[in-house]
Amino acid sequence: MANNGVIRFTGGCYLAQTATTVGKKEHQGPLNAWFDASESDEYFGQSTFEQAESEMVRRNLRLLLEKANVKEEEIGAVLGGDLVNQCTGTSFGISGYQIPFLGLYGACSTIAEALLIGSSLVSGGFLPSAVALAAERQYRFPPEYGSQRTPTAQYTVTGTGAFLLTAEDTGIRVADGVFGVVTDGGITDANNMGAAMAPAAADTILRYFDHSGRSLADFDAVVTGDLGQEGLELTDELLQNCGLDIAPKHLDCGVLIYDAKKQDMHSGGSGCGCLASVLGGYFFQRMRRGELGRILAVGTGALLSANSAFQKLSIPSVAHAVCLESTTGKGA
Amino acid sequence: MANNGVIRFTGGCYLAQTATTVGKKEHQGPLNAWFDASESDEYFGQSTFEQAESEMVRRNLRLLLEKANVKEEEIGAVLGGDLVNQCTGTSFGISGYQIPFLGLYGACSTIAEALLIGSSLVSGGFLPSAVALAAERQYRFPPEYGSQRTPTAQYTVTGTGAFLLTAEDTGIRVADGVFGVVTDGGITDANNMGAAMAPAAADTILRYFDHSGRSLADFDAVVTGDLGQEGLELTDELLQNCGLDIAPKHLDCGVLIYDAKKQDMHSGGSGCGCLASVLGGYFFQRMRRGELGRILAVGTGALLSANSAFQKLSIPSVAHAVCLESTTGKGA
Repeated sequence: MANNGVIRFTGGCYLAQTATTVGKKEHQGPLNAWFDASESDEYFGQSTFEQAESEMVRRNLRLLLEKANVKEEEIGAVLGGDLVNQCTGTSFGISGYQIPFLGLYGACSTIAEALLIGSSLVSGGFLPSAVALAAERQYRFPPEYGSQRTPTAQYTVTGTGAFLLTAEDTGIRVADGVFGVVTDGGITDANNMGAAMAPAAADTILRYFDHSGRSLADFDAVVTGDLGQEGLELTDELLQNCGLDIAPKHLDCGVLIYDAKKQDMHSGGSGCGCLASVLGGYFFQRMRRGELGRILAVGTGALLSANSAFQKLSIPSVAHAVCLESTTGKGA
Repeated sequence: MANNGVIRFTGGCYLAQTATTVGKKEHQGPLNAWFDASESDEYFGQSTFEQAESEMVRRNLRLLLEKANVKEEEIGAVLGGDLVNQCTGTSFGISGYQIPFLGLYGACSTIAEALLIGSSLVSGGFLPSAVALAAERQYRFPPEYGSQRTPTAQYTVTGTGAFLLTAEDTGIRVADGVFGVVTDGGITDANNMGAAMAPAAADTILRYFDHSGRSLADFDAVVTGDLGQEGLELTDELLQNCGLDIAPKHLDCGVLIYDAKKQDMHSGGSGCGCLASVLGGYFFQRMRRGELGRILAVGTGALLSANSAFQKLSIPSVAHAVCLESTTGKGA
């Protein structure tokens, strides 16, 4: 085996249930009907923004357990993370649950990383079940700042998604995927995350189709997490230069989650919670209804920090991809 | 299967090689002969502390590949992390390597988490090999501050350890382990990490011996990562109250790495790199020599941030444990 990063869940791992919770702007957006819950209070009833994020994680995990009708004692582990310093958004949110916890950091690729590792643990027979989750809330550009955003700027989604993975066939299988390699295209503009992440997205998508044994024709959609309009176009262009035209099947959750013009969202949504909430809400339910048969979900993460930006370093990025497919033969 | 967190690597996963790099104070300490490399320049030839940490990771991974005589193309994935905001220490260090990367955040438990997930991926046949790594460097209390440290304070180890995991029997097996549950004992003193982490350490060690089918008699040592003298004593006391006396076999890397009195290290060393460097250096080599037959390595992580401390929140903690054993019958 070479290190092309492709992994196959031959032992079987299935998506049993999801839960999604979003904030006010996402509630006002075009995908609102697909989310389970929204909260108009940006503090989620807490006294700080960080604790608000933890409360969102806490509530949404509770919601997942209720929707799936499982007790916390039945969950093998929770895998997930966020972008708050030292990932306290998730670890404080999970504190109190009697479930083993594996903290991950993949920036906005975290939910894809969590689905891949969680599926390995379930498919390999190490755990009976696992929950993959990721969360983020809007911190930058509060309207009160009146800050001028660039055309390529994206708005951080306030949202979280939690996914229950089990060994029993539920109709949606986590089939395979690819672990991404860190890629650095030399972008230093933290207001152009799409451009920073596009090379990682293209690299991972290309590696997947080169080594998984599947072709683009096998898929109803290639779903990226939060490239935004700018990053979506750049990724498509990079792939077209390599002879792969995903444009007709390429959907980006950052583009879908807001009405960019009506909501003044420039290049769209971004953040760790963007793919987590849109994949767990919109795409999961469309697969359940048989409207989509197989999708490749690609989480893209910009591995910068405020500090690395101050130090004028370029932005390394990573993308992890996971293939979800219907086991009932339904689909487009 | 219940969620007791115990996992078994029945498919086989082995420790093929390690590499360790430390800083000046660790070089001056009693374990110096067991580390592969040390650097007296606290910038590691870079211009910032954050880039120094990345350089330490980059060099040490190169050293591991050299020592193991493997090419980067042969490595299935690198799993690891650090404590710098947004884990840039590791992601910038790994950038440039053509190896898939999975970022983890478990605070000072990271290397144990990486060994457990990495061993799952190798043992389950998902990857041919994996590298687990963790790193940290000293940021707090530079001597120039002249700050007064409390008796329970620990000194952050500058160090990193990288572990090559393979499917071929190398003489040291990663046998099993346990994923920890987040535990909050209500401690709010960030200068007493040992006390914050002791309940998590005790919970994980107890769960391991309750559910793994092994008893303390099967082990030559229980090795905790960075509880320090204070945390070691508290953990032993908590376990004694539950009828388990690990004290005669309990070694803590934070206690071992410095000469507390000569080096004025109060309660000892701490940090993500403490277990990584001491397990990868001292313990790995003692197992190779046949001086230790089976050890339980317990990584303990305090899941706080500067922000959560400012907000006067208590410190949730987690501990992950991994059992390493000789396959040659050697050992004490």
